[in-house]
Amino acid sequence: MQEPELLHEEKVFKDPVHRYVHVREKLIWDLIDSPEFQRLRRIRQLGTSYLTFHGGEHSRFNHSLGVYEIMRRILETFEGRITLTREEKLLCLCAALLHDVGHGPFSHSFEKVFRFHHEEWTKEVITGDTHINQILRRVSPQFPQKVAEVIAKTYNNKLIISLVSSQIDADRMDYLLRDAYFTGVNYGNFDIERILRVMRPHDEGIVFKFSGMHAVEDYIMSRYQMYWQVYFHPVTRSAEVVLNKIFQRAKHLYQQGFAFQREPVDLLPFFQEKPTLADYLALDESVVFYFMHQWSRDADPILSDLCNRFLDRNLFQYVEYNPRDFRRLSELKQLLTDAGIDPAYYLEVDSSSDLPYDFYRRGKEEERIPIMLLMPNGEVAELSTKSEIVESISGKRRFDYKLFFPADKLDALPREVADEIRKRLGVMEDA
Amino acid sequence: MQEPELLHEEKVFKDPVHRYVHVREKLIWDLIDSPEFQRLRRIRQLGTSYLTFHGGEHSRFNHSLGVYEIMRRILETFEGRITLTREEKLLCLCAALLHDVGHGPFSHSFEKVFRFHHEEWTKEVITGDTHINQILRRVSPQFPQKVAEVIAKTYNNKLIISLVSSQIDADRMDYLLRDAYFTGVNYGNFDIERILRVMRPHDEGIVFKFSGMHAVEDYIMSRYQMYWQVYFHPVTRSAEVVLNKIFQRAKHLYQQGFAFQREPVDLLPFFQEKPTLADYLALDESVVFYFMHQWSRDADPILSDLCNRFLDRNLFQYVEYNPRDFRRLSELKQLLTDAGIDPAYYLEVDSSSDLPYDFYRRGKEEERIPIMLLMPNGEVAELSTKSEIVESISGKRRFDYKLFFPADKLDALPREVADEIRKRLGVMEDA
Amino acid sequence: MQEPELLHEEKVFKDPVHRYVHVREKLIWDLIDSPEFQRLRRIRQLGTSYLTFHGGEHSRFNHSLGVYEIMRRILETFEGRITLTREEKLLCLCAALLHDVGHGPFSHSFEKVFRFHHEEWTKEVITGDTHINQILRRVSPQFPQKVAEVIAKTYNNKLIISLVSSQIDADRMDYLLRDAYFTGVNYGNFDIERILRVMRPHDEGIVFKFSGMHAVEDYIMSRYQMYWQVYFHPVTRSAEVVLNKIFQRAKHLYQQGFAFQREPVDLLPFFQEKPTLADYLALDESVVFYFMHQWSRDADPILSDLCNRFLDRNLFQYVEYNPRDFRRLSELKQLLTDAGIDPAYYLEVDSSSDLPYDFYRRGKEEERIPIMLLMPNGEVAELSTKSEIVESISGKRRFDYKLFFPADKLDALPREVADEIRKRLGVMEDA
Amino acid sequence: MQEPELLHEEKVFKDPVHRYVHVREKLIWDLIDSPEFQRLRRIRQLGTSYLTFHGGEHSRFNHSLGVYEIMRRILETFEGRITLTREEKLLCLCAALLHDVGHGPFSHSFEKVFRFHHEEWTKEVITGDTHINQILRRVSPQFPQKVAEVIAKTYNNKLIISLVSSQIDADRMDYLLRDAYFTGVNYGNFDIERILRVMRPHDEGIVFKFSGMHAVEDYIMSRYQMYWQVYFHPVTRSAEVVLNKIFQRAKHLYQQGFAFQREPVDLLPFFQEKPTLADYLALDESVVFYFMHQWSRDADPILSDLCNRFLDRNLFQYVEYNPRDFRRLSELKQLLTDAGIDPAYYLEVDSSSDLPYDFYRRGKEEERIPIMLLMPNGEVAELSTKSEIVESISGKRRFDYKLFFPADKLDALPREVADEIRKRLGVMEDA
Repeated sequence: MQEPELLHEEKVFKDPVHRYVHVREKLIWDLIDSPEFQRLRRIRQLGTSYLTFHGGEHSRFNHSLGVYEIMRRILETFEGRITLTREEKLLCLCAALLHDVGHGPFSHSFEKVFRFHHEEWTKEVITGDTHINQILRRVSPQFPQKVAEVIAKTYNNKLIISLVSSQIDADRMDYLLRDAYFTGVNYGNFDIERILRVMRPHDEGIVFKFSGMHAVEDYIMSRYQMYWQVYFHPVTRSAEVVLNKIFQRAKHLYQQGFAFQREPVDLLPFFQEKPTLADYLALDESVVFYFMHQWSRDADPILSDLCNRFLDRNLFQYVEYNPRDFRRLSELKQLLTDAGIDPAYYLEVDSSSDLPYDFYRRGKEEERIPIMLLMPNGEVAELSTKSEIVESISGKRRFDYKLFFPADKLDALPREVADEIRKRLGVMEDA
Repeated sequence: MQEPELLHEEKVFKDPVHRYVHVREKLIWDLIDSPEFQRLRRIRQLGTSYLTFHGGEHSRFNHSLGVYEIMRRILETFEGRITLTREEKLLCLCAALLHDVGHGPFSHSFEKVFRFHHEEWTKEVITGDTHINQILRRVSPQFPQKVAEVIAKTYNNKLIISLVSSQIDADRMDYLLRDAYFTGVNYGNFDIERILRVMRPHDEGIVFKFSGMHAVEDYIMSRYQMYWQVYFHPVTRSAEVVLNKIFQRAKHLYQQGFAFQREPVDLLPFFQEKPTLADYLALDESVVFYFMHQWSRDADPILSDLCNRFLDRNLFQYVEYNPRDFRRLSELKQLLTDAGIDPAYYLEVDSSSDLPYDFYRRGKEEERIPIMLLMPNGEVAELSTKSEIVESISGKRRFDYKLFFPADKLDALPREVADEIRKRLGVMEDA
Repeated sequence: MQEPELLHEEKVFKDPVHRYVHVREKLIWDLIDSPEFQRLRRIRQLGTSYLTFHGGEHSRFNHSLGVYEIMRRILETFEGRITLTREEKLLCLCAALLHDVGHGPFSHSFEKVFRFHHEEWTKEVITGDTHINQILRRVSPQFPQKVAEVIAKTYNNKLIISLVSSQIDADRMDYLLRDAYFTGVNYGNFDIERILRVMRPHDEGIVFKFSGMHAVEDYIMSRYQMYWQVYFHPVTRSAEVVLNKIFQRAKHLYQQGFAFQREPVDLLPFFQEKPTLADYLALDESVVFYFMHQWSRDADPILSDLCNRFLDRNLFQYVEYNPRDFRRLSELKQLLTDAGIDPAYYLEVDSSSDLPYDFYRRGKEEERIPIMLLMPNGEVAELSTKSEIVESISGKRRFDYKLFFPADKLDALPREVADEIRKRLGVMEDA
Repeated sequence: MQEPELLHEEKVFKDPVHRYVHVREKLIWDLIDSPEFQRLRRIRQLGTSYLTFHGGEHSRFNHSLGVYEIMRRILETFEGRITLTREEKLLCLCAALLHDVGHGPFSHSFEKVFRFHHEEWTKEVITGDTHINQILRRVSPQFPQKVAEVIAKTYNNKLIISLVSSQIDADRMDYLLRDAYFTGVNYGNFDIERILRVMRPHDEGIVFKFSGMHAVEDYIMSRYQMYWQVYFHPVTRSAEVVLNKIFQRAKHLYQQGFAFQREPVDLLPFFQEKPTLADYLALDESVVFYFMHQWSRDADPILSDLCNRFLDRNLFQYVEYNPRDFRRLSELKQLLTDAGIDPAYYLEVDSSSDLPYDFYRRGKEEERIPIMLLMPNGEVAELSTKSEIVESISGKRRFDYKLFFPADKLDALPREVADEIRKRLGVMEDA
């Protein structure tokens, strides 16, 4: 490794959440300047949430800078407490900056329908033939691979991994603060300065001084609140359902040989499920929106209707749903089919457990790195064994099932048919 | 006029700037729900500023709700001080909400190249064949026209006009606060609560109690700072220059009969300068970005280069420019032309006086409604006659000329040629 | 009741927490102006907490205005939802404003040593021969009595009582926000606007719309955090212990006939436990501090030492204490006595259960008004039956016992003696 | 100089303005712990302003910690830009921390009546027989003297002096931010992070990079606003006038041999104008308030009245005053004297030029260190030559004259007498 270059003078980005994002390493500056990273400006951090919280229009670019900045501050507090080599520090900073670089537009729905994981694209962007890869290679030929490993949690240094991915890492801390700031929902606030102050490097990952336990509790509560108030908001989920149905319908039409008025060239590789890295990098929200516009005026009534719904924010309504009530669901499907409404596109059960709720549970399916406290006597203890509040909510997976449907479509049906369906949906018609 | 409907219960939008936006009138709710208004979600409030301040990604939807909310609060403080009819209040609220509804993507550059004014589209959206027009007509057949007149400042009630358009109106107050919040630049903060408290209705428009003069001064200073620090930031202007050149080049190529790889159908009406309202409403930033993507891979090297510059934020560099130094400019043009770089696309003088700096000056070209103070003795006085600070900056048009050019393109030229050009630009090559 | 007067124009106080405190009623204005209310400026809201959090220097005057302002806003949101008479509204406002008017300096310790309750003085100030009483009588002769009853929770309208005193009342909401603001501890923040928006009047007291449950949860968590992080902070408790010992010693010396260098005239009525209302109203923190200054230079070494400790913030150290470990305590007392240190003044077990931790528990010793939710079906449910988080912490009384002692005094003892004591205290000598 | 000790681990104070105040040097920790520094907790930063802005109750202790913290951050940004020795850094930190240590209660009025300057006491506390002096001597025997010289601006290093005392120093930056925070008046906010980022050490003192000029402008505007909106608020000045008259009357009575009911022992050295350092350090606001309480019940009607006015915030009213209108003033004095009201205590012209308004003016009476900009070409330029806004307000001394008097006392006079006086005061009787 040849010594990476420093900038002549520290540069900063004005950031509403952290005030300033500070850059001293030329490597970081060049990564931010790369086309693959700039592309993140065209992908919203919160996907469809802006349809619920109009302030939530910020991009993944925005968030990625924030994660980098928190990592930079963590490393600053570690000065003198642990010896990290220059390369290890750069590894932390690059992994923080690039952890989301493989995200595409509306990842949640898009990946589900077109079957891939953005995590793999992240790896590709870092290790494949990209500007980012070229820049990272300046550190050493193995450096890109290491960055990818840290992000994939397969790197052989638990401490470094835990800084990027754990229950209380730079990523989560930034998105809670940032999403709270932009949406205006205060629940995401917590005292990050205090948390950084009590964070200590340890063999098995980061630990937090017991004296800061309350700040960590408060962070956990903020997460809990943000998940249920923002990330799982039913209106956002309704928008996700509509989006999902759009992708599903378009793919279906393509597979049926439907003649689109304007061929969605940029999306064909995805319809065929064989996109190249170049195809993927050419994709951003503008492409998706562009074809939504086209499809909203295209011949297929379902696709056209769904696109108009999304563009004009005329989303599906929702009611509570008991996941064991299969009968209600199948009756509804039948009634809708009989009424000429395709339930494959106009009825959906969505469960928020699809969106992982990841408070720590020891020995459960997904392995999670617990939050550890450093006790005054030098021992280390898992958080929920010390905090009653955290204990009370940890490991309890909470589910929320809702049934989504387009209420307005029922109005066009004959009264008795509509009422029959409404009865099973449990919605009253407005008197 | 039949009595407009109220919502069952007040509804709110969570807003990071005003905490909540409150809606009580069904009319307002339906306007917000209309496709023409929802379209504003896909147009950024600050155009290209997000390339300078990454937080500035908020939309015109976001801002329009804020203007409405400030208007609502102004009307609240006017309760008991002036008698406005229900229709007049709705007129104020609708004009506030809809004042920007005719904005298109990157208005500044787009309008310049394709020669139209968004103000006219605003009028069209309100009075033409749109959902918004239908909704407004519920008040009365003349109501849409009145709303359009208030926005156009031709309505026959000065007070109402001044609430929407004056030196200190609901529009400006919202954008200063909002742009400050999202960019993270604190200079835009001022005490809006105090300003609303000292605002009084008056025959000739709004006035402000003298006791609140300092709050008004502070607002004026905030404006001044926001203009020079954010709105006229040279990096933003550089992005505007590049964008402008893209539109100019695309239009030029179209006029030359260039065979675009994918025909920019959605933009043709603009290239032909004959867009219909439907063409215009179908336009948003996603369309512009989509064609930028296409053009970045198209055959014309200039168009392709400019699009890549914008997408990857590889903007033009800038140096100070004395507007009287014609010779320097023509020499530069010649040198660039000789070197095979078309100065029509790669050299631009931009002056921030293009972007109006509108502190009040009595009797000057553009007529501006001055800010009036209500003195303790009941008389009314123009602000700058009472405030030394405002006096010192009012009416002084400040100019900033800069010369924009792509520094990196020079690196590809023979050394002597590049140095000759650099000398005239006044930039040193990095040693 | 003759119609109470309104002010010519609304007046405001600039308030850092609520931005402005708005006053429209002349009655309120005059109450704020009264000497008994102005006296609250000379009594700190948080007693000794300023020795832990230097920002926490705000007065009870400050807080009382805030409680009034929250009440005013609650009444505003109730407009149109419930019919309260003008007098009932004034009753709410006056009770909110005056609820702490009987507080004295450092109430906690002072009341304990001199055996009275500030609640009784509050009643006295309102119903006795005071300016406040005169002002309240302008509403009606019975009005002062009603105000006192609301504050004492004996008034015959549960709704009104619950606005002033319940688990989520105007008092608690203000002090959490205010103490958080002034100390700089963010944990006390919660979304008061949202809480006010979902608050509804109900027969048995206030209820909160279920849709706002998360905001109420967040408020509960804020309280929890503020109690353990601020109100029960061990350094604050150490200051309380020292203060308590000062009052105890001074009273003891008085009872022993000690000749104070300057007679503490203003405190004699308290030493004799027979203060009049005038004696009490003449008391504020300046009087307490003044005599601390005098005593710090007086002949009694214990009183002098304790006063110097408080003035110079040279407080007691603390260690954890198991309340069942009587033996440790009696051994320590003996060892201290043998070493010439009076344990009555230099050793104290303090338990934070002295300071009530009052999350709701049905049917427990102190009756508490639970927080009730208004469910979508119109029914009412107690909060902890709906919220897992609140359930998990409600009713669990948490105790914290600490042993306080002056570590520095041990340094003056012979090494073996000191070590023997330190061993039992469980503190190591600094190596 | 022996190497000063560091603390085992950095300690922090929670601070609402700077979030945390960080202490690493044992020297600083011990200074904060000293009785002379702790005494600052009992002296309000803003004197009588709390009677106007109820939030402004914070102490000089609070502010002094903040000045220290800003200095610490300045030194941090200077790392690598200039070589300061360990002792020089300590010198900066100590001077910042201790610059106000000689302040007494209500300095402004107290010093005027009892004729001394707190600056001299600051020097005494640092160089005299105090704990602070003992602690400072640990660095070197000359160290206390150096600290005193930096504060007195006589030290032979202009850079160090300018950090503590200039137009934009650690002291001013803290008090603007802090006073704004506590009073709730937002005008005092400015972007301190940006200012610290563009601050550079220079031979003649600190300079600011030109790129940060707008942040400096904004700071200047904040100062301007805070001076006129907070520091020179007429209600605060009214309180100062009353306080001044109290001290004046008490001193006068003492000189006349008046028999105070309780001898104001603690104040006698001041009445005699011969206080020792011990006398001075024993003084704080509690002593002043204590005697105000006593005097409010004492036999002299003027002293008693004035004290009651201050305690109950029943201050003087004010009207505008033209300083050249001597005749009006002498007529008023005569009329008041005739009516039995002593104008020496009940009529006062106060001019805000008493409280210095210190924007820079080159070559004027008081020498001020101007704010210098570091231009891109490496030259240095005085701020007002570059900034139009600053130019427009610099050097313009603004005066505000007001006449203060007790309006209520006129009500007790015969109608014609009162009206005659009111006519000259220019106040109407309330109809």
